[in-house]
Order: sequence, then C-alpha cells, then structure tokens
Amino acid sequence: DFDHALDSGEACAAFGAKAASLEPLYRNGIVDFGRSFREVDDALRRLVEQVRTSAKTPLMTVLLEGRAHTGKTALAARTAVTSEFPFVRLLSADSMIGFSESAKCQAIQKVFLDSYKSPLSIIVIDDVERLIEYTPVGPRFSNTVLQTLLVLLKKAPDEENRRLLVIATTSVSNHLEDLQLTDAFNVQLRCPQLEEPSEIEAALRHLVADATQRSSIASAITKPLGIKQLLMVLEMARGDHGVDANDFAACLHQFLGV
Amino acid sequence: DFDHALDSGEACAAFGAKAASLEPLYRNGIVDFGRSFREVDDALRRLVEQVRTSAKTPLMTVLLEGRAHTGKTALAARTAVTSEFPFVRLLSADSMIGFSESAKCQAIQKVFLDSYKSPLSIIVIDDVERLIEYTPVGPRFSNTVLQTLLVLLKKAPDEENRRLLVIATTSVSNHLEDLQLTDAFNVQLRCPQLEEPSEIEAALRHLVADATQRSSIASAITKPLGIKQLLMVLEMARGDHGVDANDFAACLHQFLGV
Amino acid sequence: DFDHALDSGEACAAFGAKAASLEPLYRNGIVDFGRSFREVDDALRRLVEQVRTSAKTPLMTVLLEGRAHTGKTALAARTAVTSEFPFVRLLSADSMIGFSESAKCQAIQKVFLDSYKSPLSIIVIDDVERLIEYTPVGPRFSNTVLQTLLVLLKKAPDEENRRLLVIATTSVSNHLEDLQLTDAFNVQLRCPQLEEPSEIEAALRHLVADATQRSSIASAITKPLGIKQLLMVLEMARGDHGVDANDFAACLHQFLGV
Amino acid sequence: DFDHALDSGEACAAFGAKAASLEPLYRNGIVDFGRSFREVDDALRRLVEQVRTSAKTPLMTVLLEGRAHTGKTALAARTAVTSEFPFVRLLSADSMIGFSESAKCQAIQKVFLDSYKSPLSIIVIDDVERLIEYTPVGPRFSNTVLQTLLVLLKKAPDEENRRLLVIATTSVSNHLEDLQLTDAFNVQLRCPQLEEPSEIEAALRHLVADATQRSSIASAITKPLGIKQLLMVLEMARGDHGVDANDFAACLHQFLGV
Amino acid sequence: DFDHALDSGEACAAFGAKAASLEPLYRNGIVDFGRSFREVDDALRRLVEQVRTSAKTPLMTVLLEGRAHTGKTALAARTAVTSEFPFVRLLSADSMIGFSESAKCQAIQKVFLDSYKSPLSIIVIDDVERLIEYTPVGPRFSNTVLQTLLVLLKKAPDEENRRLLVIATTSVSNHLEDLQLTDAFNVQLRCPQLEEPSEIEAALRHLVADATQRSSIASAITKPLGIKQLLMVLEMARGDHGVDANDFAACLHQFLGV
Amino acid sequence: DFDHALDSGEACAAFGAKAASLEPLYRNGIVDFGRSFREVDDALRRLVEQVRTSAKTPLMTVLLEGRAHTGKTALAARTAVTSEFPFVRLLSADSMIGFSESAKCQAIQKVFLDSYKSPLSIIVIDDVERLIEYTPVGPRFSNTVLQTLLVLLKKAPDEENRRLLVIATTSVSNHLEDLQLTDAFNVQLRCPQLEEPSEIEAALRHLVADATQRSSIASAITKPLGIKQLLMVLEMARGDHGVDANDFAACLHQFLGV
Ligand SMILES: Nc1ncnc2c1ncn2[C@@H]1O[C@H](COP(=O)(O)OP(=O)(O)OP(=O)(O)O)[C@@H](O)[C@H]1O
Ligand SMILES: Nc1ncnc2c1ncn2[C@@H]1O[C@H](COP(=O)(O)OP(=O)(O)OP(=O)(O)O)[C@@H](O)[C@H]1O
Ligand SMILES: Nc1ncnc2c1ncn2[C@@H]1O[C@H](COP(=O)(O)OP(=O)(O)OP(=O)(O)O)[C@@H](O)[C@H]1O
Ligand SMILES: Nc1ncnc2c1ncn2[C@@H]1O[C@H](COP(=O)(O)OP(=O)(O)OP(=O)(O)O)[C@@H](O)[C@H]1O
Ligand SMILES: Nc1ncnc2c1ncn2[C@@H]1O[C@H](COP(=O)(O)OP(=O)(O)OP(=O)(O)O)[C@@H](O)[C@H]1O
Ligand SMILES: Nc1ncnc2c1ncn2[C@@H]1O[C@H](COP(=O)(O)OP(=O)(O)OP(=O)(O)O)[C@@H](O)[C@H]1O
Ligand SMILES: [Mg+2]
Ligand SMILES: [Mg+2]
Ligand SMILES: [Mg+2]
Ligand SMILES: [Mg+2]
Ligand SMILES: [Mg+2]
Ligand SMILES: [Mg+2]
Repeated sequence: DFDHALDSGEACAAFGAKAASLEPLYRNGIVDFGRSFREVDDALRRLVEQVRTSAKTPLMTVLLEGRAHTGKTALAARTAVTSEFPFVRLLSADSMIGFSESAKCQAIQKVFLDSYKSPLSIIVIDDVERLIEYTPVGPRFSNTVLQTLLVLLKKAPDEENRRLLVIATTSVSNHLEDLQLTDAFNVQLRCPQLEEPSEIEAALRHLVADATQRSSIASAITKPLGIKQLLMVLEMARGDHGVDANDFAACLHQFLGV
Repeated sequence: DFDHALDSGEACAAFGAKAASLEPLYRNGIVDFGRSFREVDDALRRLVEQVRTSAKTPLMTVLLEGRAHTGKTALAARTAVTSEFPFVRLLSADSMIGFSESAKCQAIQKVFLDSYKSPLSIIVIDDVERLIEYTPVGPRFSNTVLQTLLVLLKKAPDEENRRLLVIATTSVSNHLEDLQLTDAFNVQLRCPQLEEPSEIEAALRHLVADATQRSSIASAITKPLGIKQLLMVLEMARGDHGVDANDFAACLHQFLGV
Repeated sequence: DFDHALDSGEACAAFGAKAASLEPLYRNGIVDFGRSFREVDDALRRLVEQVRTSAKTPLMTVLLEGRAHTGKTALAARTAVTSEFPFVRLLSADSMIGFSESAKCQAIQKVFLDSYKSPLSIIVIDDVERLIEYTPVGPRFSNTVLQTLLVLLKKAPDEENRRLLVIATTSVSNHLEDLQLTDAFNVQLRCPQLEEPSEIEAALRHLVADATQRSSIASAITKPLGIKQLLMVLEMARGDHGVDANDFAACLHQFLGV
Repeated sequence: DFDHALDSGEACAAFGAKAASLEPLYRNGIVDFGRSFREVDDALRRLVEQVRTSAKTPLMTVLLEGRAHTGKTALAARTAVTSEFPFVRLLSADSMIGFSESAKCQAIQKVFLDSYKSPLSIIVIDDVERLIEYTPVGPRFSNTVLQTLLVLLKKAPDEENRRLLVIATTSVSNHLEDLQLTDAFNVQLRCPQLEEPSEIEAALRHLVADATQRSSIASAITKPLGIKQLLMVLEMARGDHGVDANDFAACLHQFLGV
Repeated sequence: DFDHALDSGEACAAFGAKAASLEPLYRNGIVDFGRSFREVDDALRRLVEQVRTSAKTPLMTVLLEGRAHTGKTALAARTAVTSEFPFVRLLSADSMIGFSESAKCQAIQKVFLDSYKSPLSIIVIDDVERLIEYTPVGPRFSNTVLQTLLVLLKKAPDEENRRLLVIATTSVSNHLEDLQLTDAFNVQLRCPQLEEPSEIEAALRHLVADATQRSSIASAITKPLGIKQLLMVLEMARGDHGVDANDFAACLHQFLGV
Repeated sequence: DFDHALDSGEACAAFGAKAASLEPLYRNGIVDFGRSFREVDDALRRLVEQVRTSAKTPLMTVLLEGRAHTGKTALAARTAVTSEFPFVRLLSADSMIGFSESAKCQAIQKVFLDSYKSPLSIIVIDDVERLIEYTPVGPRFSNTVLQTLLVLLKKAPDEENRRLLVIATTSVSNHLEDLQLTDAFNVQLRCPQLEEPSEIEAALRHLVADATQRSSIASAITKPLGIKQLLMVLEMARGDHGVDANDFAACLHQFLGV
C-alpha cells in the first residue's frame, strides 16, 4: 500500500525531490492581475477539490493552454504544490534529453505507475509538446510518446481509493488538437494574456513603486502580452534608479518588436 | 485439448486475471436509457448466442463503434463477462506501453492462439486505434500491428469445435475505414449518444433522487452527449446537498463548452 | 532429383502438411451457382492441364481476383488439391505473423525453391495483399516482399521438366495494379458475385429445403453479394426451425446494411 | 593479370557458370521477324565490334528498353554469348533475393571489379528496375543500389587494354529516366513489338506448319504484342492437332483481354 | 561549486581551449562601418551587461541573424571573448562531423550543463542550422537535435547565482521560424549588409590606402553585400601594387555575378 | 608538421596515389577549342595563383558546373595536377561504393584533415552529386554527407600558413542550388559545350587529318554537344580508313538522337 511505498527510500526521495523541483517554477511569485487570471486559478482549485473528495473521480485530466509566456508553468506548479497531495511529480522534457523514444515512454509510465500507489496524486506535464518532440514542419513528433500519453491519460488507477489529477501545459494547443491529444483531456482551461492597462498596473504593483510610472508603462503597452514577457522587459529596462517608462518602451520596441 | 490447457497454471491464471479485469470497466453499472441502447445491447447478445450454438460459425467479429464517451468499453466488457464463455480476454494498449511493434504483434497473436484452445472464446479489443497507434496526422500507425489484426480477424480456428467471438471498440471508425480495417469485421454496431430528454431522465433515475431536478438537468442539455460525459459532469456539479440543475448547467458550459 | 527430395522426411512432411491445410479452406463445399462460376472454374482447370502437358510452359502464373467474400480462397484451394500435382503448397500471411520482412522473403523463396524440385507443382498465394502488408493509406506495403514476388513470378525453374503453376488470390486488384503486380501474372481471372435470383436459389439448393423459402430469400436480396456472405447471413438467421425469409431479410439489413 | 585470374578456380568457375546461365534465356531461339528486329540486333553487334577493336572505348554502356514480353532478355543474352568475349556475366535480381541493400551493392561491384581483369568483358544487367527494387507507387527504390549503378556505369577500367560492354534491359525506361538512370548509358536501343501481319507470319514460320493457319492467326491479332506473348498464347491454344486459329483468338481474348 | 569544477583538469582545459578557439573567428578584425553596425554591436553589449548584473536574468538567449557573409560569426565571437565571463564556449557543427544525432545531443547538453556550474557563462552557437542539419529540401533536419535546443534554450540554471547568455548565429532565420526555433530565443538581432558607399569606404579605411581608390571601389558596388564578401573580392583583385578599382569591378562581376 | 606527415609512409603513399590517379582523367588530352574554353581555364589558373600567394585566402572553394560530357572532370584534374601543390587529392564516389553514410563522412573528413597539414592543398571533388547520393525523384540524398560538405566547405584550416583550394564538379547545379550547396562555394564557374562549327573544327584538329572532313563533320552537328560526346561519336564512326562525315552523321542520329 501507499505508506509502504513511501517507506522505501527510493520512492520517498523521488517524491521529495519532485515537490521541491516545482517550487522554483514560480520563484517570482504569482500576482493576481485581475478577473481573467482568477477565473482559471479558481477552476484549477475546484478540480483539485473534486479529486480530493469525489470517490467517483479516480482520474481527472486538465490541459492548461495559452500563448507563450502567459504563466502556464508557474500556475500549474503552484496548483500542484498548494494541493498538499501526498504524491506530486513534474514530467518535463529537460529531464529526458537524449533519451530514446522508448526510454521516454518508460520514464513517463513509471511516474504514472508510481502515482497509482498514492491515494491522491498530481502529475504536472510541462510543455507537453516538447515531450512528444513536436515540430510543425512535417509535422514531426514521436508517435510512440504520443500514444503512450493517449493511453495513460485515459486509464484510471486499477485499485479503488486511488485518485489522480493530471495538469498538462502547452502553448500549441491548436497543433495538439490535430493529434487528437486535446480531446484526451477531460477539461481544457485557457491561461490569459494581460490585455487591459488595469491588469498591467495590477501586475506591477509590487515591482514598480511609483504609481505614475506604473500607469505610464501600462499605457506604453499597446498589444496584449504575457506576464513572463512583462517581467523580462522590466528587467531589461531596469536602470540604477529603477525602471523608467521611456526605457521600458524602447526595450519593448527593440527586443520584442512591439 | 482445452481442459488440459486450463490445467496448466499459467493459462488458468491468465484466464482468471482477464475475466476479472473486465468487470471494473463497467463498475458504474449499465443503465438502460432507452430504445437506442437496447438495440445495440440486444444485437450483441444475439451474436453471443449464435457463436454459442452454430457449428458453422467458427469465427464472428464485431466492431462496436461510436463517439467518445458513449459507453463502448463498458458494453463490450459486460457482454464478454455475462457470456460465461470459458475463455474471455481483454486486449488493450495500456498493457503494451513501450512494447516494440513486433512485441505487440506477438502479444496479440498469443491471445488469439490461446483462444483457439477453448471451445468458446471472446476477445475484447478495446480502442483498437490505440493498438495500431493511430494518429490522423500523417496519418501514422503501426502497419505491422494493423496487418496482424487484418490477418487474425479473418482466420478461423484450425480445429473443429472451436468458436471465437471478437468484439472491438473504436471511436474513430471513419479513420479505420480508410485503413480497410472496418471491412475486416463481419458486423458493425453503433453505440448511441443520449439525444432525448427522456433518455437523460432515464439515465439519471438512480443518481438524482428528485424527479424535478432530473427533468431540469435534462432540459439544460441541448446537444447529444455520451453516458460517460453525463456521469462526469454530474460528479463535477455535485455539492454537499446533491446536484443542483444550475450548477450542472454551469459545469456543462465551463468544462465541456456546451 | 525430385524423388530424392521427397525421400527426405522434411520435404515429405511439409508437402503432406500443406496439401492437408488446403482442404479446410473449402470445408463448406463448392456449389455450382451458375454460368459465371463455371467460367472461372473451367479456366482454372484448363491452365492446370496446360501445365500438366505442355513442355513449353515451365511457369504459369494466375491472379484470381474478385470482391471480398466471393469464394476466391476456396476455389484456388480446390483447384490445387484436385490437380493431384505431387507438390502443392499454400503461402499465406497467417503463417508469417511477426516475421521480419526478410524472414518473409526467405519463407516465400523457400517454397518456390522447393517447388523447382518437383516435376509438377502448384503454389497457392492466398490474399497476396496481406503478404506484402498492403494498406491503401500512404499507401504502405513491404517493398522488399513485393520485389521478391515480382522476381519469383517471372522466374521459370532452371532445370528442364520442372513445371510450376502459381495461383494467387486478391480482393484489391486495383491497388495491386498500381504496384505493377497484376502485370507480373500471365493470366487474370475474376471470381464473380451472385447477381441473379436464379444464382441465389442454386446456391441454396442443399441448404434450405423448402423451395418457396429459397425463392423468398432470393427476392430479399437486392444487391449482388458474395457466396461467403450469403452463407454467413443464412447462419445468423437460422432459428430452431431452419431459416425464415423474414429473419433473413432482417439480418441482411442489420448486419450488412443491405 | 587476366590469365592469372582465370587460373584461380573461383574466377574460372564463376565465369563458366555465368556464360552457361545466359544460354537458357533464349532456349526458344531468336527468330528474325523483320526489319525492326534486325535494326536493334545489328546495332548491338556493331557495339560489340567497337568494344572489341577500339582502344579508345574502354567502356560502352547500352540500355535495351522496350515493352514487356518483347524479347529483351533473350536478345541481350544471345549478344553476350555470341560475342565470345572471355568474360561474360549476368546480373539479375533473382540471384539476390533477400540480400540487404549493401549486400546487393557488393555483389554488383564484385562483378564489375572482376570484369576489369579481363581484356574484353560483357555484363548483362537483366531487368535493371528489379535490381534497384523500383515500384512506381511512391515511387520507391533502393537509392543505394541506384547510386552504385550510376557510379559504375560511368567508371572505365583503371588499367589500359581493359574494355567493358554493359547491356542492361528494362521495360520501364520512362521511370528510369526520372531517376536519371537512362542518361547514365552511352546508348539506348528499343526492342520492338510485332506490329504487322507479315511479322507475325514470319515469327510463326517454324511453329505453325500450315501457312493458311499462320495467316489466319496473324489476322486474329489486332493490336501489337511481344514475341514472348505470341509464343505463350500459341501454347495455350495448342490442341492435340496443333493450333487452331479460332482457339488462338479465344485464348487471346480470355487471357490477354485483346 | 564552480571553483571546484575549474580545479579539475578536464573542465579547465576545455574552458581554455574554448575561449581560445573563438578569437581566430575575428582574426581579420571588426571594423566599425557605420550606424547599422553599431546598433547591433551595442545591443549585444547591453545584453552582456544585463546578464552580468541582473539577478532576475538567470538565462538570456539571443539569435543573431543576417544574410550570409555579414559578419555574424565574428561579431558573436568577439562579444563572447570581450565579456570576460569566466565560462565561454563555442558550439559549432565542425566539431561534430560524423556524430550520431544522440551523440550531438549529448555534446550540446554537456556544454550547457558545464555552463550551469559557472556564475557567468556565454555559449556561442555558430550556424545553428548546421547543428540541426537543416536542408530546405524536404525540409530535412535532425528533430532530435532541434528538440534538445528547444528545451535547453528555455531552461534556466537550477541553482541560484548562475547566469547564462546564449548567442546563436544563423543565415536562414526564415527557415528556423517555421521550426519555431526563432521563438525560442528571448531576443533577435539582425546583422546588416553594407548598403551605402559611405559604409564601403569606412570598411576599407585600413585596407586600401588611397582615398580615391576607396571611393571608386565603393561606387563599383551597386548591390548590398556582406563584409566577408567585400574582403574576399578585395583579395581576389589584389595585384602587385595593391587593389585597382577596375580589377575589383571585374572580380565582382565574374565571381559573384554582381 | 607537414614534412613529418609526409615522412609517414601512409600519408606519403596516399598522396602519391592520389596525384597519380588524377592524370588518367585527362588521358585524351585537353584541347583548346576556343574562347569559351579559355575563359574557364584561365579563371581556374588565377584561383590557383591566389591560393598560392595570398595569406588572407586560407580557403577557396570553386564549383565547376556544366552539362554532362563537357569535360569538367578532365579540366578539374589537370588544374590540380599542374598546380604542383604538395598535397593533391581526388574525392569521388567510386572509391566509396557500399560505404555507410557515416563511413563516407569519415572518408571525406579525413581528406580535409590531411589537407590541413600541407601548406598548399587541392582537393578535387568529382561529381559531388554522387557523393551525396542525389536522385531528383523524391528528391533523395544523404543529408549526413551533405551537411558534412556544407561544414567542411566553410571551415578554413585552423593553423596559419595552411591554404586549401577545393574544386568540385557537377552536372546538376540546379538541383544542388535547392540544397543550398552551390551557395556554400565561394565561386562558380561554367564549363561550356561546343556551339560553333569553328569550335568543332578546332577540337578535331589533331584527330581528323583532312580539313574538308573536319568541316563536313562540323556542319553535321546542329545542336551544342560536349567534348566527351564528340570524341565518343567519332570513335563509333571510325572505320578502317578513319572517320567519314556521313558515318559520323548516322551515328550521331542513331546513338544520340541528334
Ligand atoms: N499571475 C501569474 N501567473 C503566472 N505566473 C506569474 C504570475 N505572476 C507572476 N508570475 C511569474 O511569471 C512567470 C511566468 O512564467 P512561466 O514560465 O510560468 O510562463 P509560461 O507561460 O510557462 O511560459 P512559456 O510559454 O515560455 O512556457 C513566472 O516567473 C512567475 O513567477
Ligand atoms: N448504458 C450504458 N452503456 C455504457 N456505459 C454505461 C451505461 N450506463 C452507465 N454506464 C457507465 O458509463 C461509463 C461508460 O464509459 P466507457 O469507458 O465505457 O465509455 P467509452 O465509450 O468506452 O469512452 P471512451 O470513448 O472514452 O473510450 C462506464 O462507467 C459505465 O459503467
Ligand atoms: N461456388 C463457390 N465458390 C467458392 N466458395 C464456395 C462456393 N460455394 C460454396 N462456397 C463456400 O463459400 C466460402 C467461400 O469463402 P472464401 O474464404 O473462399 O471466400 P473469399 O473470397 O476468399 O473471401 P475473402 O474475400 O474474405 O478472402 C467457403 O466456405 C466455401 O466452402
Ligand atoms: N526475335 C526474337 N527476339 C527475342 N526473343 C525471341 C525472338 N524470337 C523468339 N524469341 C523468344 O521469345 C522469348 C522472349 O522472351 P524474353 O524473356 O527475352 O522477353 P522479355 O522482353 O525479356 O520479357 P519481359 O518483359 O517479361 O522481361 C524467348 O523465349 C526467346 O527465345
Ligand atoms: N564589422 C564587422 N563585423 C563582422 N566582421 C567583420 C567586421 N569587420 C571586419 N570583419 C571581418 O569580416 C569577416 C566576417 O566573417 P564571418 O565569418 O564572421 O561572417 P559570417 O556572417 O559568419 O559569414 P557566413 O554567413 O559565411 O557564416 C571576419 O573575417 C571578420 O574578421
Ligand atoms: N578542352 C577540353 N576540356 C575537357 N576535356 C577535354 C578537352 N579536350 C579534350 N578533352 C577530353 O574530353 C574528355 C572529357 O571528359 P570528362 O569525363 O572530363 O567530361 P565530364 O564533363 O566530366 O563528363 P561527365 O558529365 O560524364 O562527368 C576527356 O577524355 C578529356 O581528355
Ligand atoms: Mg512554460
Ligand atoms: Mg472506451
Ligand atoms: Mg480469401
Ligand atoms: Mg526480360
Ligand atoms: Mg558564420
Ligand atoms: Mg565528370
């Protein structure tokens, strides 16, 4: 049973390592920048509760999609960590560089098999397109890894009283749809860009002290952008005396072509 | 001969394991939600009887197709278990993750060869598209596994008095048709969605106590959906005091986009 | 020389095994259902006689094509068995499941090389499309096996007084044409469907005792169908008191969509 | 040097075997059926003489193309045998069934390397499309073997006083053109079909005793056909008293669809 | 920690070797030919400073793209060397000729893993299209290497106080865009051609002594060209008495078709 | 250093062997047939001189392209031999038949690495399309070999005072352009056909004694042709008393279709 599994050093270490490895993914915090953010954040919480409480939900699978840089990885990671489920793991391509396709499948399957031993588990699959080695040219991808995911995403734990929540992130959900991978998830949620000046200002609340500067920066942004991009350009524009709205606009132009 | 085969521990264990592994596939029961359900259920029973009784039917192959979430797996599994045939096996992709193509072929062939030793056998092939690793992009699939199935689905047991019923499920029968795999089956049956309010109400009979609630829920559903989807949304909408029709409608909208 | 080859147990056993394995393929008999049947049956007999008697015909190759279920396998098998040639072999995909492409080529070549040792030989290649693992999607097929067949179908036995008749069956001759495989045969023959009520009635002569029933069944059939399909639907419709024409029509509709 | 090479048993045996293996290819003789035949036959002789006599022609390569059944193989084989060159070899796919691509390349290269040791050599490559495993679907072919041929067909023997004539046959020269394989030959010659009644009658001179029968048969043929086809249909139509023109026409219709 | 890593002979040697190997790439110097040059040069410097100073920039990735011969390699190399970061490495295809795809991935990953041990690192990836073996025909490329880059370009060093700047060069950024590889970089910069006569004259300042000759050469050039091309044609046109403007124009025409 | 390398028997032998192997490639001499010939010949000489003398030209790469049979191989070979550079090597597909792709890459790389040890080197790559196994159908080619060439053609010798000239020949430069292989060369030169009667007459100067015959032959040629073709047809038409203009015209027609 699960306690026994946790007794074994290997499982224990792996578990610890994994929960720990998720926290750095939101090192820069998660700032509430408005309604569109809260919508997806709330939905994730509610799914965690359903899995925690409903005996009829042995398996729940969520695809958290959205444009690049919108904070998908951070949000998925925080959801997993704050769930306090006893088994939490991250599946991401960077731990599998140079693996053969079948080695990848084994590694993925192992995480799922391990999760079946815990009463409550969360598996975060970050950038699922990288796991299947997707390129739109061709397109090319590892059909072997794709099929493995398609099978595992449909399979509930065999034993009773074992429940698993899978949260996958992607920024190419349109391509995954062609592969019928989006359909394999029970639920899809969209991670939003920052669109309104008020959202920008809210996001900068703790980063730019001066409210007038915040509002100048917000008005320099004329196209939606992701929270990660906002933070990067802020860093580029940072001078000795904080961030100047003009420098910010210049960086926005030169480096992001906005 | 067959009895001898059953004597051997391996075959025996395998048989037991397999029959047992089919029952959890309809753990949530099979509810009679109306005429369209009974049509396919009856047809399956009649084919079981034909195989049981007709000496001129050494091999009968059925493709149970239908949209995702319509209950195909549950129905095929129950048909197999309730047949009480001495040899009942499940062939599904989740027991073959990471297998090479030729290992898959061997595993599949082994189940068929074993079945030829029993006077009456049923093989359930769940999600046959996963067994052949089908992706519509390309399309890609394992031609080796496909050819193995095409051959085995046409081959009657060599010995007399051996009869085999194969029930395969799929939710992409249109794709299988391109591969000439649907033609390889003697018979095709369609697993229906729930379309009428009366069907929804019938399906909820034992799940929602209050008849008015049942009828509100039924009227919240404006598009056909599968029995499995109905049960999932019900679970999402379940609160401390059962399921409220408004909550149900909200979940239907947020999670399934209906 | 040939007698010597037959002396060796291996060749002998193989030969016996093979001839025996062809008879079950027409276990349900071959019923003369009319002129279209006799045309192809006669042509096959004449080719057997040509090979038996003409010293200038060291190699004759025939492609017996026709829609699925028209009785191609049964007809080819009976032609081979009734020829009473000393060497008769069946080449079919079900004895090569899981073989690598090159293992398949070797197995095929072995049968041809063995045949060259007999003065008179027949090789039946059943469902030649399965041997080359053909799928119309792509299309995909084993070019290695195809090339092996293309070479062997053109190669006469090296030694004098060795004559070989090859009879291959297929239900996708249009696809084989694209592969230039049909051109590799000296002769093509077409196996017919049952088209006329009189043909249906003739086919049912020994299976349905009552002549009125036979004629009702014949009139229930409004589209051409193969002899194997006719026999299958008959079996489905068989009740305790034989076959009723109405039941037959119902089965025809539900299971074959006719 | 060459004499030395012939001393070694292996080369000697191989040489003998090869020359011998070419003669059966025109066992049924070569009949002069008219001007179109003589044109190609003469051209082949003249090229043999050029190689025999011109010190400036270390390498001459000929592609003998024409429709199926026009006698290409027989003509190439006789040209090689009657040249009386000391080194004559046949390269054909049937001696390489089941070879890997690289094994094929080695076998081909070996024949060329061996030929460089003889003052005068002829290599016959029969059905060059089979050597490269060509299928028009795709198209598919062995690029490795193709490249090997493209290289060897351009490479003159390194040593002086070594001269090599290559004669390749094909019935798909249009496809070989796409592969730029036809361009690799110095010269292309076309093997003709029989087109005129007078050609048919000439071809039958020694096969059908009665001149009136010959002329009836000739008039039964309304489309051009190859010499090999003519001989095959004649054999099919042969009865106890020779060939009857009506039987001939019937066979022509049933078996060749003419 | 890093000092420890540098202690080990292997890391130390590799580090030295690498920094040294970058200097020859701008052996011919870097001449300031005008504003367009300074723009990209300044941007590179500023990014080096950001990485040196911002604790919130653990990873910065730049794609330096531009037409062939515009000096991308030289500029990237000088930026890396003059940064005086303790860890500087060159990743380029010529050190991986004949490597298997997985060996390439390992070599690439090793350089990144090594960089994570240094507080400040620069990795120059020269001609990233060669690393992924890109050919526009097909197109073909190593998806394995591409995926490895896509993953590594997004992964910040795990430990705190480790910062990495990646500068990649390419002359086919349009093709890389199709592969979604350009999007994987935080910033893209364009290396300019010489367009104005004044730029040509500036570039020739130290190479052609006579100002009138410089101006004649500048006016002989009617289309934009890269700094490397300019230097090459100059070398072709160089006679015993330096470079004559007419010879320069002739070489330009004959060798570059300008 | 280089002298040392030459000391080792292996390098020495290889070097000798290689220079020797280039001479037979222009055994039939190089005849100056006019201005178009001299243009390309002069350009090649000038590039040899640039490499011999310019310290700023460590690497020069030339693609000598032109239609089949125009004398590219002979011209490249003579340029290499008459340069009297200490290191001269031929890279051509016929020395690599049956090599795996990686074995080819190694062999190619070895020649380049060896060249870097000599102060002045020439590598002739004959028929570069054969090295990359190019076929226009598909197209197919060895991307591995192509990438190896693309890398080596851009890489100057690491050490100072090492200079390398690469001369590659091809008759399919349009196809190489699609592969971006032509762009990898610094310079492209075109090898011309014979177009004018005066060119034909000049080419025949030493081969046909009689001036009237030369002029008749020249006027029989109505389409441009390569010098190699001219010499071949001359040989075909050669009779006991030299070449007759009528025979020449007949051969031209029959064998080349002109
Ligand atoms: N509301 C927020 N949601 C998500 N991330 C936030 C939020 N507020 C601040 N952040 C910070 O923004 C960054 C988001 O980066 P993250 O890597 O999660 O984006 P991403 O969408 O996964 O990017 P990519 O498309 O490149 O994978 C993190 O550093 C996180 O700490
Ligand atoms: N009439 C019914 N038919 C089938 N299943 C039913 C029925 N009534 C209730 N159920 C329950 O509905 C669920 C059907 O799920 P099942 O996995 O069989 O659907 P499916 O069509 O195979 O789905 P998928 O397309 O995802 O494979 C099961 O839990 C089953 O117990
Ligand atoms: N005249 C007939 N010709 C052929 N088969 C007949 C005939 N009469 C009865 N039969 C029976 O019909 C069946 C024909 O089945 P068979 O497998 O030969 O058909 P097939 O065309 O090969 O089918 P498939 O396309 O599925 O391979 C056999 O059981 C055979 O005994
Ligand atoms: N004039 C002729 N030319 C060629 N073959 C002839 C001629 N006269 C008689 N024959 C006979 O005709 C037959 C020609 O068959 P052959 O196999 O050479 O034809 P092919 O063109 O190579 O056929 P395929 O296209 O099937 O390879 C041989 O048996 C040969 O002996
Ligand atoms: N302003 C400059 N920028 C870059 N290179 C310069 C400059 N001035 C002089 N050079 C010299 O020009 C050459 C530029 O060559 P480099 O190989 O960097 O070009 P590249 O764009 O990488 O070419 P390729 O597209 O072939 O890879 C070097 O020799 C360098 O020393
Ligand atoms: N001016 C010339 N240029 C080149 N070759 C000449 C010339 N004059 C005579 N020759 C002779 O012509 C022949 C040219 O053949 P070569 O193999 O070089 O042609 P190629 O263009 O390489 O042919 P291919 O396209 O088949 O490779 C050689 O035998 C050479 O000795
Ligand atoms: Mg992310
Ligand atoms: Mg299912
Ligand atoms: Mg059959
Ligand atoms: Mg032939
Ligand atoms: Mg560069
Ligand atoms: Mg050449």
